[in-house]
Amino acid sequence: MRKVSVSIAGGSGYSGGEVLRLLLFHPQVELNQITSERYAGKFVFKAHPNLRSITQLKFCQLSELQKCDVLFLCLPHGKSMQNIAEYKKIAGKIIDLSGDFRLKNGDVYEKWYKRPHLNPEMLGQFVYGIPELHREEMRRASFVSSAGCNATVTILALYPLFKNCLVELGKTVVEVKGGSSEGGNSPSEASHHPERSDCIRSYKPTQHRHIAEMLQELSFGEDMQMHFSATALDIVRGALTTCHVFLKEDLQEKDIWKIYRNEYGHEPFIRIVKEREGSYRYPEPKLLSGTNYCDIGFQKDDDSNRLVVISAIDNLMKGAAGQAVQAFNIMHGFEETTALDFPGLHPV
Amino acid sequence: MRKVSVSIAGGSGYSGGEVLRLLLFHPQVELNQITSERYAGKFVFKAHPNLRSITQLKFCQLSELQKCDVLFLCLPHGKSMQNIAEYKKIAGKIIDLSGDFRLKNGDVYEKWYKRPHLNPEMLGQFVYGIPELHREEMRRASFVSSAGCNATVTILALYPLFKNCLVELGKTVVEVKGGSSEGGNSPSEASHHPERSDCIRSYKPTQHRHIAEMLQELSFGEDMQMHFSATALDIVRGALTTCHVFLKEDLQEKDIWKIYRNEYGHEPFIRIVKEREGSYRYPEPKLLSGTNYCDIGFQKDDDSNRLVVISAIDNLMKGAAGQAVQAFNIMHGFEETTALDFPGLHPV
Amino acid sequence: MRKVSVSIAGGSGYSGGEVLRLLLFHPQVELNQITSERYAGKFVFKAHPNLRSITQLKFCQLSELQKCDVLFLCLPHGKSMQNIAEYKKIAGKIIDLSGDFRLKNGDVYEKWYKRPHLNPEMLGQFVYGIPELHREEMRRASFVSSAGCNATVTILALYPLFKNCLVELGKTVVEVKGGSSEGGNSPSEASHHPERSDCIRSYKPTQHRHIAEMLQELSFGEDMQMHFSATALDIVRGALTTCHVFLKEDLQEKDIWKIYRNEYGHEPFIRIVKEREGSYRYPEPKLLSGTNYCDIGFQKDDDSNRLVVISAIDNLMKGAAGQAVQAFNIMHGFEETTALDFPGLHPV
Amino acid sequence: MRKVSVSIAGGSGYSGGEVLRLLLFHPQVELNQITSERYAGKFVFKAHPNLRSITQLKFCQLSELQKCDVLFLCLPHGKSMQNIAEYKKIAGKIIDLSGDFRLKNGDVYEKWYKRPHLNPEMLGQFVYGIPELHREEMRRASFVSSAGCNATVTILALYPLFKNCLVELGKTVVEVKGGSSEGGNSPSEASHHPERSDCIRSYKPTQHRHIAEMLQELSFGEDMQMHFSATALDIVRGALTTCHVFLKEDLQEKDIWKIYRNEYGHEPFIRIVKEREGSYRYPEPKLLSGTNYCDIGFQKDDDSNRLVVISAIDNLMKGAAGQAVQAFNIMHGFEETTALDFPGLHPV
Repeated sequence: MRKVSVSIAGGSGYSGGEVLRLLLFHPQVELNQITSERYAGKFVFKAHPNLRSITQLKFCQLSELQKCDVLFLCLPHGKSMQNIAEYKKIAGKIIDLSGDFRLKNGDVYEKWYKRPHLNPEMLGQFVYGIPELHREEMRRASFVSSAGCNATVTILALYPLFKNCLVELGKTVVEVKGGSSEGGNSPSEASHHPERSDCIRSYKPTQHRHIAEMLQELSFGEDMQMHFSATALDIVRGALTTCHVFLKEDLQEKDIWKIYRNEYGHEPFIRIVKEREGSYRYPEPKLLSGTNYCDIGFQKDDDSNRLVVISAIDNLMKGAAGQAVQAFNIMHGFEETTALDFPGLHPV
Repeated sequence: MRKVSVSIAGGSGYSGGEVLRLLLFHPQVELNQITSERYAGKFVFKAHPNLRSITQLKFCQLSELQKCDVLFLCLPHGKSMQNIAEYKKIAGKIIDLSGDFRLKNGDVYEKWYKRPHLNPEMLGQFVYGIPELHREEMRRASFVSSAGCNATVTILALYPLFKNCLVELGKTVVEVKGGSSEGGNSPSEASHHPERSDCIRSYKPTQHRHIAEMLQELSFGEDMQMHFSATALDIVRGALTTCHVFLKEDLQEKDIWKIYRNEYGHEPFIRIVKEREGSYRYPEPKLLSGTNYCDIGFQKDDDSNRLVVISAIDNLMKGAAGQAVQAFNIMHGFEETTALDFPGLHPV
Repeated sequence: MRKVSVSIAGGSGYSGGEVLRLLLFHPQVELNQITSERYAGKFVFKAHPNLRSITQLKFCQLSELQKCDVLFLCLPHGKSMQNIAEYKKIAGKIIDLSGDFRLKNGDVYEKWYKRPHLNPEMLGQFVYGIPELHREEMRRASFVSSAGCNATVTILALYPLFKNCLVELGKTVVEVKGGSSEGGNSPSEASHHPERSDCIRSYKPTQHRHIAEMLQELSFGEDMQMHFSATALDIVRGALTTCHVFLKEDLQEKDIWKIYRNEYGHEPFIRIVKEREGSYRYPEPKLLSGTNYCDIGFQKDDDSNRLVVISAIDNLMKGAAGQAVQAFNIMHGFEETTALDFPGLHPV
Repeated sequence: MRKVSVSIAGGSGYSGGEVLRLLLFHPQVELNQITSERYAGKFVFKAHPNLRSITQLKFCQLSELQKCDVLFLCLPHGKSMQNIAEYKKIAGKIIDLSGDFRLKNGDVYEKWYKRPHLNPEMLGQFVYGIPELHREEMRRASFVSSAGCNATVTILALYPLFKNCLVELGKTVVEVKGGSSEGGNSPSEASHHPERSDCIRSYKPTQHRHIAEMLQELSFGEDMQMHFSATALDIVRGALTTCHVFLKEDLQEKDIWKIYRNEYGHEPFIRIVKEREGSYRYPEPKLLSGTNYCDIGFQKDDDSNRLVVISAIDNLMKGAAGQAVQAFNIMHGFEETTALDFPGLHPV
C-alpha cells in the first residue's frame, strides 16, 4: 500500500515535535518535510533532542514546502488563517493544531480572540477535532482543527452529561490545572524556572479562550454558561480538570457509570477511572505522559446534587498532537490507535 | 516582665515543629517542655533538623508534663478530646491544633468525623481560632482551637462576602490545591515520593471534613452549602483556594476592593493581591512559605455574576502553627506580629 | 513462529512492572504469569496503574508458577539466591534483576553485601547483564543477571577508556545522581514526600555496593579503585553519572570521540551526546525516561589531564527492565531493539 | 546610636532582593536608596513580590544615588569594575557581590573571565568576602567582595584540610549541584521551565570561573589543581558540594571532627552535620533556604585514603546576600548574626 506523504509546517515547537515523534513510528506514513524558519537546514534533533539518532531529517523553510497528501499545521495562533489558501494548494488534507479554525462562527472568534478572523468563510469547512464527538464527519473530512487542550479535557468529561440533558445549565464550574508545556517553547518571565517552580499560579480565573469551544460543543442549542478557571502548576505535561456539575435528577453513581459507559464504552482512548481506594482511584495526568488517553472519573456528593467529574490528559498528546494523529488515522481509515499505543510509565 | 511559660504536647510532628520554631524566637516566651513518645530523651533537632544548633532542648514524654501557663496541643486528631481534663490541670490556657474542638456542636462533629465526640460539653468553651473573625473573644479566651488549613484559607477568602450577604447561597464552589505537609509526617503509599511526585491528585472531591468549619463560620444562620473539592500537588507547603461565588448584586471590582479593604484593611496578616500584570498578580502560596500571611485576590467575570476569589496561605503557618501563635499573642496582649515577622523568600 | 512463554516472579515492584509493560508489547512473547504475594488474585493494574485497559492479567502467587521458557526474577535482593534451584526447575532460562548473581566471587559478594552468598557455586553461571560488554556470552546463556543501575551507567561511561588502558588507575572519582524509583516501592521516612521533595541528599558517599560491579567489569585484572559517591535528587526516574578520570596520555577530544565511536558505534542503545551549545549538549536523563538508551558525553579539561565523562540512563529501563529485555532479545536471536523502541519525550 | 545609611545599586535582581530583604529587618540600618534602571519609579515589591506590605520603598535610577555610609553593589558582572571610581565617591564602604573584585591578580582574572580587568589596581584593596577566612581583615576593611556561591560552599568545606596540609594536592575532585536562582532573573532557553524542570544538567564540567577563587583561597602558595564540575538541578535555591580529597596521613573520622571543630567551633554560621542515621545525616541544602548557614559533613572511605566532604548552603544567602550582610555586620562591629537569625524551615 502506498504510504501517505505528510509534511509538518511549524515543526520546531512542542506540538510540532510531538506530531513528528508520532509520525516517525507510523507504518503508513512517509514523512516528507518539516519546517522551521529558525532551524531551517538543521537536524530536527536540535529542536527535539529526544529524536537524536531516531531520524536524520532536517528542517526546511515554510516556503520550500512541496506538495504532499496531508499537511499538519503546528504554527503559532493566527498564522494558519493568514495563509490557509496557500496550504490548501500544498495538500488536499489539512490538520491544523492552532486555535484558528476551532470555532464555527467568526463573531464568536472575534469575541474571544479579540481580533477579526481573516478567513471566516473557511470556518465551516473544518471538523472540530475531538474524534469521540465527530468521528463520522472526520472520516470524510479534508480539514480538521484540533481542539484546545483545556477544551478537550473538559468537553470529554462533560459531553455525556450535557448530551443527555442531565445538567442544570448555568451552574457548571470547571477548573483546569495544567503544566508549562501548554505555554509553548518561548522563554518568558512567566516561564523562568525560579518563578514557575513550585508555583500554584491562578493565571486565567475568567475569560479563558477555550470556553468558546466548550460552549460550542456542549450547549446543544441551549443558552448556557461555563464558569471556567485555569491554574498553572510546576509540571511540564498534563492537565487535570475538576468539573462541578449540578444534576437535574437524583442520579446514583451507578447511573452515572452507565451513562459514561454508554457513551465511551467502545472508545479506544477513553478510560473510566474510579476505584474505592488507592492513590490512583481518580484520573492522574502524570500516568498519561506520552499517551493519547483521556481518563475520566467522578464522585457524587452525598449532601447535594453536585457531581464532580474529573478528567486527565497529556496536553501535548490527547490535547494536541495525539488527537491530531488520531484524526489522521480516522481520515485515512487506518486503525485508530496506530502510532498511539504507548501506555505511559509508572512510576514517573 | 515575667515570661509566659509554655509547653508543647505532641511536638515531633510538622505543626508541633513549627510552633516550636516560632516560640524559640518569641521574646516573651519561656519554652518549658515539648513531648514526643517516640523521641523522648532525644534532642528536638532529631525530629526537626532545621533547629540544629538553635536549641539544645530535648523531648520528654507526655506523662512528664509539668504545670505551665500555656499548653499547645499538637497531637493527632482525637487525642485532645480524649484527655482534655488532664491538660486543663496542666495549663490554664490551651491552644489546640487538632480538629477536636473546632466545631461548636457534637452532632455536627459526629456527622463529619464519623465518630461521637468524647467531650461535647467542652465544645462551646473553645474560641474558633481565626483571629480575623474572633479577635475579641480571643483576648479573654482560655481555650482556642486552631482552624483547619483548608478551612482557614477558604473562610478568609469568603468571609467579607458572606458577612455582607452578597452571595447566592448554595452555588458556591471552592477548590483547594495543597501540598504534602498537610498529611503529616507518617510515610504511606500516598506520600511515597515516586507516587506523589508530579501528581495532580484529586484526593477528596466531596465530603472533606473542613466543610463543616466553613459552614459554621460562613452561614450566619442561613441554610447553605459549600461545594468543596481538594486536590493534592507536588509541593510540600502551601494551599491555594479558588472560590467561585455568584453575586446577588451587580458589583464592580472596585466595590469588591472596598468590601475587602473595609473588612481586612487593618489586619496585619491579610494582603489584598490584585495587579494588572505579572506572574504574581494573584496570590501565590510559594511566596508565603514560612510566613503567616493570607493573600487574597479576585477577578469578576465579564460575562456573568461569577466572582472568582483566590487566596493563599502556608498551611503549616497561617493554616496551623502561625495562626496558633497569633492567637497566643492576642490572648496575652502581645504585639500580634511577634515572632511572626518573617516576610517569605523570593525566588523560591 | 511459536512465541516464547515468559513469566515474571515478583511483579508488583517497579522493575517488575516495567518488565511487564515491555513484554506486553513484545510480538514474540506470550506472557504467562506474574506473581505478587500481596496482590495475588488482583488485576496487575492495581499495582501498575499505567496498564489499566492494556491487559486483564492478574497476579498469582509465587507457589503457583508453572513451567515456562523464560522466567524474569524481579524479587527483592536475597530472594533469588535463596530459591534459585526452584526457579531453574520452572524455566530453562532465567533473567535475574536483583543483586544476587552479579558478582563472580562469593567472597566479594560477602564483603559488599555483608552476608554470605547462599549459592556461590551458581555465581559463575550467570552472564553479567550489560549487553555492550557481554553480547556474545549472552547469545548462548541460560542465566543472565541484570546489572545494578548505578553500575550500568558508570561502566558504560568508562568501559572504552579502561579497556584501552588509558586511565591512571586509583584516581577515578565517580558521582551518580539519581531518582527515588531506585529505592523501590516501599514507603519509608526517606521516601516520604515532604522529606524527599527538593532534596539533594548525599545518601551513600562511600561503600556503595555497586562499586563491586564496577571493579569487576572495569579492572581487567589490574588492582584499582573506584572512588564513588551517590546523591539522591527530587526526580523519580533517571541517573546521571559524572566520572572524573585522569588520562595517562595527552589525548584530544577528537581522540576520545574515536575511542567511543570505535567501541559503541554500532550499539543500538548508546549515543554519544556532545554538542557545542544548547541545554542538551551533554546527556540529560530526563530525555531518557521510558527509553533504553545510555547517552554518553565528555569534556576534556584544558588545564589538566582530567577527562569528565558524563552518562545518563533511565534507571528502571537501561538500568533494570530495559537492559533485561535487551538481554532477552539477544538470548533468543530477536531483533535487539524489539519492544524497546520508545524514543522518549520532549519536553518532559 | 545613629543608624548606618545604606543603599543598594542594582537592586532588582535576585541577590539585590535578598540584600534588601535582610536589611529591612536590620535594626542598625537605615535603608536609603535602591536602584534599578528597569523598575525606576516603581515599588520594590514589583520586582520582589515577597516584600509586598513590608516596605513602600521605590526603585530609583543608578544616576540618582546619593551619598551614604555603605553601598552594596548587586550589579551584573563587569559593571562594578567599570564604575568603581564613581561608587567610591558615593560611599566610604563598598560591598560588591559581583565577580569583579574577588581575585587578587589581574592576569588570573583575565584567564578565567576572558577579558582584561578594567581596574586591576583596585583588586588588592578588596577583602575576599568569606568571613570565616578573613574576619580580621574585614573589621577594618572599606571594600569587601563577596565570594562566588560555588566557591564559598567549596572553600568552606575544604579550608581546614588544606590549611593543615592534609591533602594530596592535585587530586581533589569537587562537584557542585545547584539551583536555578544562581543564573539570575533573566529568562533564557536554559531557564525555560519545560526544559529546566526535572533536569540533571551537566552545565560546566570543566573551566568554571569559581575555580580561580578556590585556588586563590586554598593553595597557600602551593602549586595545585581543583578538578571541579557543576551540575544544575530542578531546584531554585541551594547548593551542595561533594568534595573528594585524598589524605596524606591515615586520619580517622574523630581526627577529622577535631580538625573541623578546631577551625569552625566558634563560627556562628558553620555547623558540622554528621549523624549515624536519618535522611538528614549529611548536609541538606533545602533545610538552609533563607538561612546563612553552611553545613558541613564528611565520610571517610574504609577502603582508601579518600575523604568525602559534603557541604551545603543557600546560594543566595551564605553564597551571596547573607554573606554580604555578615561582612557588613563585621565591618561595623555589630553582632555578627544580626538580621541573619532565620533558622530555616522543615518540612520544606
